[in-house]
Amino acid sequence: MEEDPLAREHARPGVRNEDGIAAVLGILKQSFGERFQTGEAFRAQHTHTTTYLPAQLPDGVAFVENADEVKVIVKACAEHKVPVIPFGAGTSLEGQVNAPSGGISIDFSRMNKVLSVNTEDLDCTVEPGITREDLNTYLRDTGLFFPIDPGANASIGGMASTRASGTNAVRYGTMKDNVLSVTAVTANGEEIRTAQRARKSSTGYDLTRLFVGAEGTLGVLTSVTLRLQGIPEKIAGGVCAFPDIESACNAVIMTIQLGIPVARIELLDALQVRACNAYSGLSNEEKPTLFLEFHGNEQTVAIQSEQFAEIAAEFGGGEFRWTVNAEERAKLWKARHDVYWSVKATAPDKAILATDVCVPISRYADCVTETHRDILEHGLYAPIVGHAGDGNFHTSVVFDDKDEADVAKVEAFIARLAQRALSMDGTCTGEHGIGQGKKGFLVEELGGAVDLMRQIKQALDPDSIFNPGKIFDPA
Amino acid sequence: MEEDPLAREHARPGVRNEDGIAAVLGILKQSFGERFQTGEAFRAQHTHTTTYLPAQLPDGVAFVENADEVKVIVKACAEHKVPVIPFGAGTSLEGQVNAPSGGISIDFSRMNKVLSVNTEDLDCTVEPGITREDLNTYLRDTGLFFPIDPGANASIGGMASTRASGTNAVRYGTMKDNVLSVTAVTANGEEIRTAQRARKSSTGYDLTRLFVGAEGTLGVLTSVTLRLQGIPEKIAGGVCAFPDIESACNAVIMTIQLGIPVARIELLDALQVRACNAYSGLSNEEKPTLFLEFHGNEQTVAIQSEQFAEIAAEFGGGEFRWTVNAEERAKLWKARHDVYWSVKATAPDKAILATDVCVPISRYADCVTETHRDILEHGLYAPIVGHAGDGNFHTSVVFDDKDEADVAKVEAFIARLAQRALSMDGTCTGEHGIGQGKKGFLVEELGGAVDLMRQIKQALDPDSIFNPGKIFDPA
Repeated sequence: MEEDPLAREHARPGVRNEDGIAAVLGILKQSFGERFQTGEAFRAQHTHTTTYLPAQLPDGVAFVENADEVKVIVKACAEHKVPVIPFGAGTSLEGQVNAPSGGISIDFSRMNKVLSVNTEDLDCTVEPGITREDLNTYLRDTGLFFPIDPGANASIGGMASTRASGTNAVRYGTMKDNVLSVTAVTANGEEIRTAQRARKSSTGYDLTRLFVGAEGTLGVLTSVTLRLQGIPEKIAGGVCAFPDIESACNAVIMTIQLGIPVARIELLDALQVRACNAYSGLSNEEKPTLFLEFHGNEQTVAIQSEQFAEIAAEFGGGEFRWTVNAEERAKLWKARHDVYWSVKATAPDKAILATDVCVPISRYADCVTETHRDILEHGLYAPIVGHAGDGNFHTSVVFDDKDEADVAKVEAFIARLAQRALSMDGTCTGEHGIGQGKKGFLVEELGGAVDLMRQIKQALDPDSIFNPGKIFDPA
Repeated sequence: MEEDPLAREHARPGVRNEDGIAAVLGILKQSFGERFQTGEAFRAQHTHTTTYLPAQLPDGVAFVENADEVKVIVKACAEHKVPVIPFGAGTSLEGQVNAPSGGISIDFSRMNKVLSVNTEDLDCTVEPGITREDLNTYLRDTGLFFPIDPGANASIGGMASTRASGTNAVRYGTMKDNVLSVTAVTANGEEIRTAQRARKSSTGYDLTRLFVGAEGTLGVLTSVTLRLQGIPEKIAGGVCAFPDIESACNAVIMTIQLGIPVARIELLDALQVRACNAYSGLSNEEKPTLFLEFHGNEQTVAIQSEQFAEIAAEFGGGEFRWTVNAEERAKLWKARHDVYWSVKATAPDKAILATDVCVPISRYADCVTETHRDILEHGLYAPIVGHAGDGNFHTSVVFDDKDEADVAKVEAFIARLAQRALSMDGTCTGEHGIGQGKKGFLVEELGGAVDLMRQIKQALDPDSIFNPGKIFDPA
């Protein structure tokens, strides 16, 4: 597996516990009635959506409405040793919602309420099914917002489970930094809470951070308490083109090193700029480009924007025009969030493999430049876009998923990309998670530490009912 | 135990494995020669220093010089089922370095090197025994600093293990936010690394955050990779007195809610101001007082200071005089870090119990005010000082540890304080950890979640060799 981590064994069906599954289907039909569905259309909807990995259907989908119903499902599945796969918005990219051994998909779309907002404490508690956009719509009148923004309109439960981040992470951190506490139903069918609502705590093992990023393999989240941020008094943003990728990366490195509290600093290569221009009606120069945003008050965003303009000039960047005009900014960031669809639009009949790596920022220019060269040398079409301030970037590889040779070519590229990041003390995934697609790379990255993960999994989920086949294979 | 969590069963010696201990003493004498000490003076030095808990001595102390030596000790102790207690600077406050079942104390004072500094990436890797002050001395010429500053000059390994924070946490976070990765020797005697050096990663379970705060109960840290910060271009600071605690707290709440990026905002009650004046030669008005600091450039620290001055005025604060004079600031913060000794100086013959709780900031004024009233009503002498921006505060209770009635009175106070914090959705410890002293409160705070901690402990340390008797008792 280590030699070819993307080989298709992740698609090999696990051992199905047919008797157990039959028993649980009976129990849940009785308990949930119409809110438990076993038709193929429902089951197919609850596997991958934006991943290239083959779909592996669950045996039934339960539309839960509260934590007690989650307990009912977990207890039934624990008794009969049947897999439980939590499902939020279905926007994960590494097969996290696939059901390789069948089992029950728990759909959280009806558990999407905001349970409380504490404006004085800048926090809120939500059910896992709410999407980040719906949460921010709800919060609009409070003067607060939730900053984490992966490309998709993902659910908060899913974002917590994959340790998601996005364009604002350079300033506000990732889900690891913004989840204060979760409640989860564990293997004994009971609900635990990982922490109180205080900003910090030294009470033993950090179970909150253990559930964040666990991809549903240790239990099922039933609520998430999040840190919120005050909506900045003033937001400035702008675009700056550079002669080459290296210059753009070096401008980013300098910005971070000088401690300019940039809120967003995103790199797009020339191909990605072209795709965005076409899809989102922009007219940016087709060169490596940074999209930036600064949060503060009128004075501080002006200071930061001017500081960045000086840095950009030093690295041969074009004129940095910044604005506080909300409409222009909104258009820019809508385009940024639509990069996946902009690439898809260039080749509607083809598949896209969206992958990500993250390296220490000193190696960012090297890693992006080498990857760009690799793409050209191997005749791939793969725009690059990145959360440059974090050292994180994505490639969207366009390919024909019906053509074995093309699939093999893409898999080899992904392996080279991951190994390039690892050789630079980086990680095989900055924000998409391991899922099914990167299990081999995880072992290459962390070696013996993966054994500790397996031991924890074995301790907390002895019958392996929680999202089996994800992150790592059993020892 | 739940009814009286501070009852002395934490001091009850555990079951000693005399044969195993004898075997390990023989092995380590042979391996370490002069660097393995069994004399009582050495052993006594390696238990508590600044805690009121009774000392429980290890059987021997090994002065390690590298990770391979840690492996030798862990392998010997694992084979013979003998406790291993990592020892940094001995400044923990809840008995974390006590040896209730005997065993081997690993002294890290010779493993105190800086292994690498990556100025471009704003990170460094250090051995666990280096103290925070020595690290910052080392970093001085790089333009970078490490911001986490508990009161004591603690070791980085100890700070990671208790998830320490300090006065800068309101701006820079706690150890949880500033450790990028650790290496640790685990129960099989092998070393693992929890993460690469990238700023963020979604590679499975967050083992870094699991070791941060584990108090040495899951393995022995052998290196820590830390985030660093650029030394601010300009630092401003000042002091502001308030008519009462509530007004001071409300000024803090407003400062945080408005998103003013204050670097430090510390509350001292009138008693603590008096003690600091006497001990550190200050002449502040003996009223509830905030010590503040702002980091930025000349323009931004001025803006922030003026914004705070307006808030202070709104809540009846005295004039807020701020300065960028380095000498005045240094004196102020030296005084702040010396609060423990300032209290000690008021009653040199007595013991001090330093404890901490943390609540959501909306409840901060309530919690501090009620605690202040409690102290008065029960005739205690217990100055209050707090990292107000985090909702965290400390009391230093002065008492006679030879007088049973006085001890009981203090224990009852600590229990009321913890339960008050819990009732406000706060935590029984914001930064000191659970150790031996707060095991009962942990169960009150997190209930069933403590069972998960036990399961993790059992999985990663099946023979319970790593710092037994800390955080929780076995089920």
